[in-house]
Amino acid sequence: MTLSSDAARRYARDQAPRFQQELFEMLRIPSLSGDPAYAGEVRRMAEWLAAHLRELGLDKVQVMPTAGHPVVYGEWLGAGPTKPTVLVYGHYDVVPAALEDGWETPPFEPVEKDGRVYARGATDDKGQLFIHLKALEAYLKSAGAAPVNVKFLLEGEEEVSSPNLRPFLEAHLDLLRADVCVISDSSMRTSEEPAITHSLRGMTYLEVEVRGPSDDLHSGFYGGAVHNPALALVELLGKLYNPDNTIAVPGFYDDVVPLRADERAMIAKTDLTDEQLRQATGVAAAWGDARYTIRERVSARPTLDINGLWSGWTGPGPKTIIPSKASAKLSSRLVGNQNPHKVFEQLKAYIETLAPPTVQVTVRLLNTGEPALIPYDLPEMQAAARAYERGWGATPVFTRGGGSIPVVADFANLMKLPVVMMGYGLDDDGLHAANESYSLAMFQRGIETAIVYLEELASL
Amino acid sequence: MTLSSDAARRYARDQAPRFQQELFEMLRIPSLSGDPAYAGEVRRMAEWLAAHLRELGLDKVQVMPTAGHPVVYGEWLGAGPTKPTVLVYGHYDVVPAALEDGWETPPFEPVEKDGRVYARGATDDKGQLFIHLKALEAYLKSAGAAPVNVKFLLEGEEEVSSPNLRPFLEAHLDLLRADVCVISDSSMRTSEEPAITHSLRGMTYLEVEVRGPSDDLHSGFYGGAVHNPALALVELLGKLYNPDNTIAVPGFYDDVVPLRADERAMIAKTDLTDEQLRQATGVAAAWGDARYTIRERVSARPTLDINGLWSGWTGPGPKTIIPSKASAKLSSRLVGNQNPHKVFEQLKAYIETLAPPTVQVTVRLLNTGEPALIPYDLPEMQAAARAYERGWGATPVFTRGGGSIPVVADFANLMKLPVVMMGYGLDDDGLHAANESYSLAMFQRGIETAIVYLEELASL
Repeated sequence: MTLSSDAARRYARDQAPRFQQELFEMLRIPSLSGDPAYAGEVRRMAEWLAAHLRELGLDKVQVMPTAGHPVVYGEWLGAGPTKPTVLVYGHYDVVPAALEDGWETPPFEPVEKDGRVYARGATDDKGQLFIHLKALEAYLKSAGAAPVNVKFLLEGEEEVSSPNLRPFLEAHLDLLRADVCVISDSSMRTSEEPAITHSLRGMTYLEVEVRGPSDDLHSGFYGGAVHNPALALVELLGKLYNPDNTIAVPGFYDDVVPLRADERAMIAKTDLTDEQLRQATGVAAAWGDARYTIRERVSARPTLDINGLWSGWTGPGPKTIIPSKASAKLSSRLVGNQNPHKVFEQLKAYIETLAPPTVQVTVRLLNTGEPALIPYDLPEMQAAARAYERGWGATPVFTRGGGSIPVVADFANLMKLPVVMMGYGLDDDGLHAANESYSLAMFQRGIETAIVYLEELASL
Repeated sequence: MTLSSDAARRYARDQAPRFQQELFEMLRIPSLSGDPAYAGEVRRMAEWLAAHLRELGLDKVQVMPTAGHPVVYGEWLGAGPTKPTVLVYGHYDVVPAALEDGWETPPFEPVEKDGRVYARGATDDKGQLFIHLKALEAYLKSAGAAPVNVKFLLEGEEEVSSPNLRPFLEAHLDLLRADVCVISDSSMRTSEEPAITHSLRGMTYLEVEVRGPSDDLHSGFYGGAVHNPALALVELLGKLYNPDNTIAVPGFYDDVVPLRADERAMIAKTDLTDEQLRQATGVAAAWGDARYTIRERVSARPTLDINGLWSGWTGPGPKTIIPSKASAKLSSRLVGNQNPHKVFEQLKAYIETLAPPTVQVTVRLLNTGEPALIPYDLPEMQAAARAYERGWGATPVFTRGGGSIPVVADFANLMKLPVVMMGYGLDDDGLHAANESYSLAMFQRGIETAIVYLEELASL
């Protein structure tokens, strides 16, 4: 028999004012992970969370060291081994904020206005993270137990690209063992259109350098007899794409999982029109592989972009040189089941094949990230959809994110967990910008959705 | 009857020590045209030259104002209207020099060592300019007359690209009227291989900008549906050349004067081997239009080079943006009879034709320079060849310079003068570098060659 969510939801409603005050307390700690001067505050935030988890009655609560900022861990396994275990991931660090960036109130003095709390970290990710603590509290304080086991993994380095998280996961696979991972660190389309992200793109990032003469040459003395490295580079990069805007690199698409008809129908629910794309970006017209819709292109299909290009004289006015070298940064957004290292080898081989004997071409890997594709027909995903329907009061759509969150791929690929990205924020919340804020109503609806989700998971 | 050069040459030999001392005097004046702090010294150099021309007995000697540094003018028209008039152009300004750049002796305290004088301007162009003053002096002081009329036009802004010379020429076409223009501001191959430059390439310099989104975009959010401006740029520039390394711009070669067999034979005398090109530049292999030799490619054929390229993120590490724009600087070295403005229109039209509707492409002219092609079978050119044979003691070769000297095109095209570039320097002289120097023996041989040239011109 599964513990009902009703009492927990009632408790959460009754305690809403206190929950908000506790969130404000979190928001007062300037846990900036990118600035060494704030390392003490990051630590204070971790200790605050650990103390809070202990108060809630969790076990094995620890502030665990990494090579950088610590990880906060805590678990409640009282549902017993026959019930599933949920691993909740969140991050308690924030990006910088200062009054002079345009904040109307001090960023670390939370202010409530028109039903929203204004403070750095309100939506990204303190507010969304705290939802899960309060959901568990609601069960434990109202019924003395939760319907499933819960583990918390709260990171302090997400805003600096989680350099130490993967080694931490590898070192603590046993401790972190679970059946499903829940992350709330993303956005809905609107407050009435919840979204569950079930796919993220991976990444292969490389740098190409073309070298010609040992030094820049006078174009009057050598122009005509020396292969200009900038010309060689553009000739080479000009062959990355086929005329139909597909990527010309042999084998590039081999491992791409084809989109099923039902997946395309799901993606169509959030399609972008040409007009919307033009409005959002300022481009003259959409572009890309015409066999796919715009939303498919930006989320479910792999890409290859030039992120940077440099050679020779780039200051004002003319300078008549043949540059000694020319460089480009290229990156490919990958989808399941592409392997970033295999794609790097394919790109490298293609570029090297195109390289003419008149120049030296070097291709260097800068970094990689694995794609993550979690089938939305998994029971844990469908349970999340029901949780939104009951807890939030709206039917969610399953979406694919075009960006990359390496930690998601780590949970999915390294820990073999279905990762359920239940975003409770909005893009309008101003994350990473001035006057970041979070709707207190959404905070409350998030807690109730999280409560229902635990119940839904228990009945799988 | 033509005045013999014999007495003048004897005079020049007798007076060699004094001539050198006078050159040293010139070299002591730091006439840096590029530094406003030295404007007074540039002026002092101009006044020194004017005084010197007056001492030699020239007429109409003036320091003539321009919008920048002045022009020194003086003339001797005593040969009378039946004799030709020679316009001698030279420049009395120099580029900067400082001990800390590696000079072994102070750059404006000329020092004689091993038959060379070390000082800034020794070869570029004070030494070479002074040769012509001393040649005229030798006639006037030994015989009271020269075989031809001579006008001097001495500029003080050559090292800052002669911004005011063309307006000066246009304003004084009558005063400067002549039958031939002589310039000594270039190099021989070796001291025993004199060279007369009879062609210089012109220039069309442009900037291409490709604009896509209004701002840089997150490649995860829009990658795949937005035409990356850097990609659009490389796709476009990748079509500048045909596979045989000829320029693909329609009409580009239309006005190129075809090389005659005798011209190709002349160019072959100074050909560059593949090995020499590799040694000089460090490239892996020569490149270009295989129908022409390397020397032809770098001097007698037009080019199209990418001089600069920039877009997006060019710092260390990755940054996953779709840049909002991408730019390139392009320049074309032109040969007779290409018109730089016509070539600009051809390049612009070609680039605009290639531009896809997904981006905005702007093509902007930065500057132009006309090519100059003076047939070496002109009597004034053949007279120069005889002057080297008799005065220098070696047979010169007619060469084509791959670079551009706008003033030469102005003399040739605006003033309709045959321009005879009789270089008396060597590339080894260290022009624009530390420890610039000039061989005093070459200075003397230059004076004798210039003396003979006036005699040769008189007998045409």
